[in-house]
Amino acid sequence: MIEWLDSYEGRTWQTTESGTIRYALIGLGWWTTDLALPAIESSDLGEVTVLVSSSAEKATRAAEENGVERGISYDEFHDGAASDEYDAVYIGTPNATHLEYAETAAGLDKAVLCEKPMEATVERAERMVATCEEADVPLMIAYRMQTDPAVQRARELIADGFLGEPVSVYGHNSQHLLEMIPDPDQWRLDADLSGYGTSVMDLGIYSINTTRFLLRRDPVSVQAEMVSNHEAFADVPDERSSSLLVFEDDVQMISTSSQHAHEDTHLKITGTEGRIELRPAFHGECSLHLSRGDLSVTVEHGSFDAEREMEEGFDYFADRLLGDGDLYPDGRHGLRDMRIIEALHDSAERGEPVDL
Amino acid sequence: MIEWLDSYEGRTWQTTESGTIRYALIGLGWWTTDLALPAIESSDLGEVTVLVSSSAEKATRAAEENGVERGISYDEFHDGAASDEYDAVYIGTPNATHLEYAETAAGLDKAVLCEKPMEATVERAERMVATCEEADVPLMIAYRMQTDPAVQRARELIADGFLGEPVSVYGHNSQHLLEMIPDPDQWRLDADLSGYGTSVMDLGIYSINTTRFLLRRDPVSVQAEMVSNHEAFADVPDERSSSLLVFEDDVQMISTSSQHAHEDTHLKITGTEGRIELRPAFHGECSLHLSRGDLSVTVEHGSFDAEREMEEGFDYFADRLLGDGDLYPDGRHGLRDMRIIEALHDSAERGEPVDL
Repeated sequence: MIEWLDSYEGRTWQTTESGTIRYALIGLGWWTTDLALPAIESSDLGEVTVLVSSSAEKATRAAEENGVERGISYDEFHDGAASDEYDAVYIGTPNATHLEYAETAAGLDKAVLCEKPMEATVERAERMVATCEEADVPLMIAYRMQTDPAVQRARELIADGFLGEPVSVYGHNSQHLLEMIPDPDQWRLDADLSGYGTSVMDLGIYSINTTRFLLRRDPVSVQAEMVSNHEAFADVPDERSSSLLVFEDDVQMISTSSQHAHEDTHLKITGTEGRIELRPAFHGECSLHLSRGDLSVTVEHGSFDAEREMEEGFDYFADRLLGDGDLYPDGRHGLRDMRIIEALHDSAERGEPVDL
Repeated sequence: MIEWLDSYEGRTWQTTESGTIRYALIGLGWWTTDLALPAIESSDLGEVTVLVSSSAEKATRAAEENGVERGISYDEFHDGAASDEYDAVYIGTPNATHLEYAETAAGLDKAVLCEKPMEATVERAERMVATCEEADVPLMIAYRMQTDPAVQRARELIADGFLGEPVSVYGHNSQHLLEMIPDPDQWRLDADLSGYGTSVMDLGIYSINTTRFLLRRDPVSVQAEMVSNHEAFADVPDERSSSLLVFEDDVQMISTSSQHAHEDTHLKITGTEGRIELRPAFHGECSLHLSRGDLSVTVEHGSFDAEREMEEGFDYFADRLLGDGDLYPDGRHGLRDMRIIEALHDSAERGEPVDL
């Protein structure tokens, strides 16, 4: 037990401790400047050398404010400016714009770390995968939960039989988007920029992807209900959504998400012999709750926050570029999430289950 | 707050404190003898005067062992034996046999308290309602959660706006049926006696009915997935099941249940402004967890167990017979659960949502 606790934060994936990946950060929203940038700066294997934004002035000003060498515009980025000053790009722009930056990066032979969901539609996600594969450029999707220590330990326990056979999964992710970002015209509520919708694309994806990772299984059929009532959600179908997914081996997953509800994140997997629960589950404050027989164990991991979780993800990505481990949540992995999300939206629209 | 805590167990439904209802208990399984009988004996307004079982010998022996006046056989009951010695019947037999006892009780002008689910099929439940209404005999379905103090307080809080608008509901109820009752030939796994199936009829019904009671809303459409893999479940479709129900006002409920999984009971309602959670939720050990804004409150109610919960239900039923309050979870209320369960099974079989 002491050994297990002491190794809780251990990076079992680590293959190298030397080298540095220089990042160009594309898109300077609060997520990129307040979380991604400091996370890379405090990571072991990364540094930020270029910021890319809508205008050279904005990018240069942000670079100066954050102690970064260069700031360039999106147009300059597409023209190949400063391309000898970075090794990889981090794409944190609205969903429907990821592809264009990935295409340019691939053309410049730069590795790509792309935010999730990887694009607005399956078709555009397929193009991203094809482009990066043709250019032989590494493409990773930023599923940070996969390098969270609680998730890593849970995945090992499941593989070792802690649950017995997995039976059912509950996922929930809700927040008040309009209180977090008080702007009804934000891109997450604009179908042209967000893609299929908002609550599954932005929140439900955490439950679904983490379950795929923990169970090493994928959904084979899905059904969903979605509704938007609040006027700010008029352009997207899923202010709130609920989903029922059947995974391989008849594991049943149910999931709710909402962009307009009391905040809560929760993932629970029930097996024939035990239960593994992450609560809070997402956004960097992950506690692990274990039950088996009459015993219960809670592991609270106070030092781990959203920035630390991102740092872990960036170091994992850099390790994969610098060392010799396989890169796991790659473009094809992210593309499968896109197909699942598309199927959920199809199901809600057509009123019938959709097979994958 | 002190007032609220002191009134936590308060019987806001009580209309009388005098009088006694004399019960005939029909069906002497462990549930009836180990839980229902002592619960009535320790209740304020009830006493057990007659036990009814498959043979007069068995019933008489059980009556002697438990200090009850009379023991009679099912045949004797149907013939009207001892009918001046009880005022009401409690039906705790396998689902598919409830109707015959209710019919005889109605013919004898006795009030009926019937275990849930009220029968094996919608058609038989309809006959029970019609029979009791034609005979003008009170019929209540034994939804004990509705008189649990945690559920009563949660319902008041929801009516007072604690949640804001309700958004989504999660229900879960799982157990190891074959460890609790180690007999693969038990009636809950026999479709002729159980009805549509086992995990929704026996477990999911707790989540669904308690949600209906808490939200004062009913489902308008349902979809479900069910599967049986273990050989003991060959005769029923739902060793494990998952459901997605849309309630009035677009409230979305997701629910899982399993008769072959690690034990867990959980009900969570998320609203726009807060969250109300029962965990453990069912089977008499109900704790109430409240969240609103940044605040969380947990009310643990140690003295309340399954017998005490049943006692509360029996006193409520007796109060309705002796006093002048409306009897709430009546036959039509239970019939609606039967229609919901039938619709869930239809949905799982046909692979499409079913409207109610």
